[in-house]
Amino acid sequence: MNLACVCHRAAMPMAWPIGENELRVVLKACKDDLSGVNVYYGDRYAPLGKDDRLRMDKEASDGLFDYFTARIHTETRRVRYIFRLRSDKEIVWYTEEGFKNSRPRSGYFQYPYICLADIIKEPSWIRGRTMYQIFPDRFHNGNTGNDPKGCLKWGVPPKADSFFGGDLKGITDKLDYLSHLGIGIIYMTPIFRSPSNHKYDTIDYYDIDPAFGSKKDLKMLVCEAHARDIKVILDGVFNHCGKDFFAFRDVVDKGEKSKYKDWFNIYKFPVYVGENPNYETFANGIWTMPKLMTQNPEVREYLLDVGEYWIREADIDGWRLDVANEIDHAFWREFRKRIKAVKSDAFIIGEVWHDSLEWLRGDQFDSVMNYPWREAVLDFFARGNIDAEGFDNRLTRLRMSYHTDIWPGLLNLLGSHDTPRIKTLCGDARKSALAAVFMLTYHGLPMVYYGDEIGIKGKGDPDCRRTFPWDERVWDNELRGLYEKLIKLRRTCPEMSDGNIKTKYAKGNVYAYTNSDIFIVINNSGERMSVPLVGVEVGLSTDIISGRKYMFEEKRSIETEPYSAAVIVQDKHLGRMIHQHA
Amino acid sequence: MNLACVCHRAAMPMAWPIGENELRVVLKACKDDLSGVNVYYGDRYAPLGKDDRLRMDKEASDGLFDYFTARIHTETRRVRYIFRLRSDKEIVWYTEEGFKNSRPRSGYFQYPYICLADIIKEPSWIRGRTMYQIFPDRFHNGNTGNDPKGCLKWGVPPKADSFFGGDLKGITDKLDYLSHLGIGIIYMTPIFRSPSNHKYDTIDYYDIDPAFGSKKDLKMLVCEAHARDIKVILDGVFNHCGKDFFAFRDVVDKGEKSKYKDWFNIYKFPVYVGENPNYETFANGIWTMPKLMTQNPEVREYLLDVGEYWIREADIDGWRLDVANEIDHAFWREFRKRIKAVKSDAFIIGEVWHDSLEWLRGDQFDSVMNYPWREAVLDFFARGNIDAEGFDNRLTRLRMSYHTDIWPGLLNLLGSHDTPRIKTLCGDARKSALAAVFMLTYHGLPMVYYGDEIGIKGKGDPDCRRTFPWDERVWDNELRGLYEKLIKLRRTCPEMSDGNIKTKYAKGNVYAYTNSDIFIVINNSGERMSVPLVGVEVGLSTDIISGRKYMFEEKRSIETEPYSAAVIVQDKHLGRMIHQHA
Repeated sequence: MNLACVCHRAAMPMAWPIGENELRVVLKACKDDLSGVNVYYGDRYAPLGKDDRLRMDKEASDGLFDYFTARIHTETRRVRYIFRLRSDKEIVWYTEEGFKNSRPRSGYFQYPYICLADIIKEPSWIRGRTMYQIFPDRFHNGNTGNDPKGCLKWGVPPKADSFFGGDLKGITDKLDYLSHLGIGIIYMTPIFRSPSNHKYDTIDYYDIDPAFGSKKDLKMLVCEAHARDIKVILDGVFNHCGKDFFAFRDVVDKGEKSKYKDWFNIYKFPVYVGENPNYETFANGIWTMPKLMTQNPEVREYLLDVGEYWIREADIDGWRLDVANEIDHAFWREFRKRIKAVKSDAFIIGEVWHDSLEWLRGDQFDSVMNYPWREAVLDFFARGNIDAEGFDNRLTRLRMSYHTDIWPGLLNLLGSHDTPRIKTLCGDARKSALAAVFMLTYHGLPMVYYGDEIGIKGKGDPDCRRTFPWDERVWDNELRGLYEKLIKLRRTCPEMSDGNIKTKYAKGNVYAYTNSDIFIVINNSGERMSVPLVGVEVGLSTDIISGRKYMFEEKRSIETEPYSAAVIVQDKHLGRMIHQHA
Repeated sequence: MNLACVCHRAAMPMAWPIGENELRVVLKACKDDLSGVNVYYGDRYAPLGKDDRLRMDKEASDGLFDYFTARIHTETRRVRYIFRLRSDKEIVWYTEEGFKNSRPRSGYFQYPYICLADIIKEPSWIRGRTMYQIFPDRFHNGNTGNDPKGCLKWGVPPKADSFFGGDLKGITDKLDYLSHLGIGIIYMTPIFRSPSNHKYDTIDYYDIDPAFGSKKDLKMLVCEAHARDIKVILDGVFNHCGKDFFAFRDVVDKGEKSKYKDWFNIYKFPVYVGENPNYETFANGIWTMPKLMTQNPEVREYLLDVGEYWIREADIDGWRLDVANEIDHAFWREFRKRIKAVKSDAFIIGEVWHDSLEWLRGDQFDSVMNYPWREAVLDFFARGNIDAEGFDNRLTRLRMSYHTDIWPGLLNLLGSHDTPRIKTLCGDARKSALAAVFMLTYHGLPMVYYGDEIGIKGKGDPDCRRTFPWDERVWDNELRGLYEKLIKLRRTCPEMSDGNIKTKYAKGNVYAYTNSDIFIVINNSGERMSVPLVGVEVGLSTDIISGRKYMFEEKRSIETEPYSAAVIVQDKHLGRMIHQHA
């Protein structure tokens, strides 16, 4: 037995409560090394020797590891447990103290008590929804009266400092478009007063940028969105402000005498605002964005109030938090408490591009932008440098690195205002469509970057921030139809968010899996492929994409065209979906 | 290469900041599998391809794993890094995305920003100190005027419900004894009003039990202790209260109409107080101890105020928290914030008998009672069911399961009011003395259970709670002298707390290691043993225990008597120690 690979710790993401009386435990072992694992468990105060036991399920594998999981039911909410590992040759017991050859009487792993206050509660409304990210200057110009000076003509290629006049009224005007697409959440990049088109350099956190509109426009947008059952998320830029933020201006003007001098990290007075600044900024020397010292209680209180204010004022449904990984955990704990006190089901998403467990323990964020997931998607669909098996391994490893409560809310994205667009990265429009099928049929919360659904192209910033072409004649309407079908499928099957994913086939460039009762086949190759089906429920089914009917028998396979996908739903479920959707 | 054993995650305890500009990273690999590891790192915003690199130190091994560690210096406080693993046969790169055969350009591990607010700050005063645990009813009776009714004669064997009249005045009277022993912290089991001798069933959190004295007596004790540079820690019992606590009485009296009904988990009204109670209690049905619902904001506020009150009122230096693992993390986060706001260097110790990482991330406790460490000590010294190598493996595994900031404060103990005494468990007094030498020469914060230093015996509760015999004629004075020497050695060498431990020899029953500059040999066998010395600095040295002088040459060994220990300090350091102590 490869004991050094066996891993469990009574801590996230290997042990955590799912509800008041159930503990999920996960044990990692070297792939194909163990033939079975049982968990022996009992109440922590009960006499020893009376353990209950469960056979653990080999839930997933990632190329290196098998993941064995179990749900332990506990009436008293207190659990002690040990594992019995079985290979073809031996039996070993695994405890907190290490490995034992015979059944131990001590050293049990302990989950001391399932505390109600520690159970992770994600907003219930996120399940089944799809998010739509909007860069407001480029989505739609609903009010030409507030256009900034020097606006370019809608449709010309953007430069880094271009303005186009898109605004809140423009978004409100297009809510029916989004509603028809099935969108359940809008996330807008920043809208507060700022001199730039992207507005990540805030001047006034309490005011809407006049080029985007007014508070009234925001309230109208939220109100109209809510009327269509669309939630609205704002972008909170709390890591840094703009150089003209009042507190920074005060420090520039008054130097060491400014009462705001400790709001920033000034290396030397007087402050020099320009190239090679003498104060800490976002990234290295971005002088227009002075870093805010969130460990300073005054700064903290200021930003926390901003967080509360827009919920109270405009009834927004949550925050996407910019550069969230460079702000202290203590700040985010306080942020969560304050935000949830104002709106208990507000959704809090951090911008973290990497492994995010440290922010997803239930005390900080509900979700993060799932960029590592995007990297795996790009490797498979765009770069072609991993095969379906490698893709599956990466996905499994990512999923198992977080606890199940986090799975439904993970913000899966093919691109954003910070990346080239998926269609450009894939080159072949058939591949980018497959990536979209994958995103929209996988667990988590898919995020559509505005215009991806009609096939907009774009290299890196600023090219990925082109204006949305409202002339439908230039749209890829087949693609838009595909997005709509799948977004609406999720809405009717919210269980698709949860993470009940089973890999059915992963060879070459063909990837097939089930998500709950739905069976998805993706042929990411230029060949016609026959995919054997094992463990897919029999019965009459329909491919949502092609409309084709299938009658699955016991032993069977499915034929797929080059660069095509099938999303197959059993007709017995289809009825429910159509009914719910009508 | 055994890749499935290679483990790192940019999270505690494998990556965390030590100070503002340094990141410690730890990588686990299968023992003896890798010949070397380098970490390649750079600023997260710097262009790729310009990484700095460090050779990682194989800091420790635990039988299954080697632990490679490095300290990465970062001026910008933002680090990205990857590992280059080398075995005799191959070179593999390890990234957040997995393993690569050639140097990767992406997928770096990220430690996004060392936030000042997240740096763990243990109280600086804990280094070098030794704690002394007192069960107040049994330590010394300083005021016979407040003895409870039915007090037994000092010295007779205690029963579960015996009272002996020990009190706060008694402890104050014996401060010179403790000071002479070198003690730096007193921790008393609960002293608030309660009907029992142990007082874990609190009636009034704001009042001292009259049998122990008054608030004035507590203030006097703290004041006199502080005058001797001794800190005072109280026992906070916040998981449950006593059945006569005012809020529970109100619920018993008024039933569902009580405004305190949600302070408890009452299964059914009316409340039945007795065997098989109909409310949730500590453990299973301990009806005298109703569990407090700490998720209830009123309960929370009440207990947090208690925590603050005794610091403000009596200037205590911290809390030991009873059954801390069954109270929600959210409560402890708030507790830490409130307590540290009143006294920034208060010390917070949780009673957690098992793996405690979930409480030791810097947002909850400074320390825990290190019972898993005690289990390893018992296995080696008392039960004899592991050899020195197995002992060393257990210790290493425990140490490496936490981050270095936690190491100096970990409360290492040979026993407590909840366990049989070490002398009884070891049987042989020579072995229990060796266990004491080990505790007092290892890193962490040793806790002496009152009377262990003079050789008191005792089986489990209530026998482990005997009265302290103040007649010196019954003391084991040699043992007391040993404790005193080593406690004072720590006081003069506070670096002994930190965890700079190097195993020098671990075979059979002989264990030798260095702690900073001090070399310790423990012969836990009935044989005279010769221990080869490798990697011990040469020079004139003195065994603190025997007073014997050593002149270490390049190649040498040390002879040890059966069941004996040597604690060898180089004379060049000895001067400093004697000087400091004088």
